[in-house]
Amino acid sequence: MNAREVIFRLATRADLPSIVRLLADDDLGSQRERNEDPLPETYYSAYEEINKDPHHELIVAELDGEVIGTVHLMFLPSISFQGGLRAQIESVRIVTQHQGQGIGSQLMNWTIERAHVGGAHLVQLTTHKSRERAHRFYERLGFKGTHLGMKLSLK
Amino acid sequence: MNAREVIFRLATRADLPSIVRLLADDDLGSQRERNEDPLPETYYSAYEEINKDPHHELIVAELDGEVIGTVHLMFLPSISFQGGLRAQIESVRIVTQHQGQGIGSQLMNWTIERAHVGGAHLVQLTTHKSRERAHRFYERLGFKGTHLGMKLSLK
Repeated sequence: MNAREVIFRLATRADLPSIVRLLADDDLGSQRERNEDPLPETYYSAYEEINKDPHHELIVAELDGEVIGTVHLMFLPSISFQGGLRAQIESVRIVTQHQGQGIGSQLMNWTIERAHVGGAHLVQLTTHKSRERAHRFYERLGFKGTHLGMKLSLK
Repeated sequence: MNAREVIFRLATRADLPSIVRLLADDDLGSQRERNEDPLPETYYSAYEEINKDPHHELIVAELDGEVIGTVHLMFLPSISFQGGLRAQIESVRIVTQHQGQGIGSQLMNWTIERAHVGGAHLVQLTTHKSRERAHRFYERLGFKGTHLGMKLSLK
């Protein structure tokens, strides 16, 4: 366990390079991100869109002034469930050297609590079928793998 | 095949009772919706929120002036994929007596085209693991079931 305190907070524009580094730091991410200095402008325009939209929260975990984790929380209005608000979690990452220290669980629980306070009746996410450690991780947090997640590339 | 022309269009507030009837008309939906006259106010407030948000499109299929299908298309800004825009499809329904006539495929293809024109690089959806006919349906449209969809109820 790490005795130093991890802070969870909304991301700022200045966190974007750290977030992209986290997203690029795995097999899938390294193929699809461009972790360059300066960052491609598309990252900044996506950040601005997320930042101005009250349905989106880009979140980071910070330790000793450094971003070591991230998650994107979105609120999805829906007609189903009597017009109920859903929450969705995307892009969950913890930097490699801080994995296995409980920080991911803390980050998820902090994010789930925000979803709850924000009025969501449900939190949903998808994770690649091959990521079995992630499945166990989310199951320990209370998630149930009831659905098949399907994707169609348009490029 | 049905020779009469099915129209695909954005839903209006007046379509809401028909949409809720569609959502309520299956085993899962009947337990969670309230298909009453008048509809509970929560449906209308969710509709207003969806309608004013440019990232959301509530879509209906209409035949002879009657709503026979619905889908909810959402655009999700994201940092991942170089700040790429994703599309997500929720709440796909075709009225029972018009299933198996190709209308669902037309509705999906119309919606996927809107996602494409709207700038999305990917369309994603989840479907209950038990709905094997739905899995085949989405696979025929080009979707690949690469992910596990997980849910956590907050109620």
